[in-house]
Amino acid sequence: MDPNKRKPDIIKAEIVAESRLFKVESLHLKFSNGEERVFERMRGGNRGAVMVVPMLDADTLLLIREYAAGTHSYELGFPKGLIDPGEDALTAGNRELMEEAGFGANSLIPLKQVSLAPGYFASKMDILLARDLFPEQRVGDEPEPLEVIPWPLNRIDALLEREDFTESRSISALLLTIKWLAEQEK
Amino acid sequence: MDPNKRKPDIIKAEIVAESRLFKVESLHLKFSNGEERVFERMRGGNRGAVMVVPMLDADTLLLIREYAAGTHSYELGFPKGLIDPGEDALTAGNRELMEEAGFGANSLIPLKQVSLAPGYFASKMDILLARDLFPEQRVGDEPEPLEVIPWPLNRIDALLEREDFTESRSISALLLTIKWLAEQEK
Repeated sequence: MDPNKRKPDIIKAEIVAESRLFKVESLHLKFSNGEERVFERMRGGNRGAVMVVPMLDADTLLLIREYAAGTHSYELGFPKGLIDPGEDALTAGNRELMEEAGFGANSLIPLKQVSLAPGYFASKMDILLARDLFPEQRVGDEPEPLEVIPWPLNRIDALLEREDFTESRSISALLLTIKWLAEQEK
Repeated sequence: MDPNKRKPDIIKAEIVAESRLFKVESLHLKFSNGEERVFERMRGGNRGAVMVVPMLDADTLLLIREYAAGTHSYELGFPKGLIDPGEDALTAGNRELMEEAGFGANSLIPLKQVSLAPGYFASKMDILLARDLFPEQRVGDEPEPLEVIPWPLNRIDALLEREDFTESRSISALLLTIKWLAEQEK
C-alpha cells in the first residue's frame, strides 16, 4: 500500500445541479499519471449522522419499521438521524432513540464510524450500541409513529434473509454488534 | 409488524434537479394517517450493482485501494461496479474482479442483496463471495491502475479499525463473508 500516493488534482469544481436537499458538484480531476476525468459527487451539509442499535435486554434488539421514499416501501432498520448543531454523536443518538423508538439509553458505546459511498458522498455516520434502556418518548419530525419491533438475537439469520432488511448501514451495525457481544463473552 | 400497512399516496412527483449522473425527484406524500410531507429522493438508472469479496486463498482476502471523489481520499474496499446491460450479477461481478483486481473466479456465491440508503435511493447491490481465483486482467474504465492488497483473515480487526476502510457496503460484505466462512466450518 502506497501511503504517499498523490491524490488527483482538482482542476475545476462547480455545482451543476441543486435541489432543496441535494447539491451535485462536477469535479474535473487530473490523476497523478496524467489521466483526466470529470466525476460528479454530492455535496452535503457538514452535519454528521448517527445510527443506534438498541438492546432491550441481553437477548433482544429493537428494530424500527419506517417508510423509505427511495424504494417506496416500509423497511426495517435501526433508529438513525442527523446530528443537530451543538450536539455530539452520543447526544444525537440518544435523542433519535427517544424520538424513533421511545427509549433512552444509560449506556451508548461507539462501534465504528462508517461512510455511505465515499465515491459520491462525504457523509459519515457513527454507529452506536445502546444498552441499559429506559422508556422515554420524545416527539420528532416523523410524519407517523414508527413501528418498534423487538427482535431476538437468536433470530439474526432470519433477519438477514428478509427482503425488507437490506440497508448496508443497518447490516453493518447489526454484524458489528454481534461481533462486539461475542468479544465481551471471551 | 403490520404487513398490511398502507404506503403513503404519492400526490405529486416531479424532477427538480438533474445532472449527468444524478436526478432528484420531489415527492409530495400523504401518509395513511393524513399527514402530508414533501420528500426528495434520487432517481437512478435501473441498473443493479455488484460487490465482490475475493478470496485469494482460504486465509486471505483481496482489497482494492481506489480514489473516492466524495471524500477526496484513497479508500480501501472491495471491487464493485454497475451491472452492464445484458449481464447478470455473477457475470458483472467476475468482470469487475478482472478489471479492478486482475483475477477471475471459478466460484461466485451470492451472500446478500443490500441497499445504500432506501430513504433516498432505490439502487440495490449484490454482494458476492469469489473463490477459486485465477489471474486475468481486463481493462476497465479506471483512470489509473488500482492497488490490490492481500489482507489476512486473521487481521480483520485491524482492517475494521482503519480510517480508510469505512464504506458500509464493504463492511457488510466483510462481515457477511466472515459469517459465511464460520458457518462452513460447523
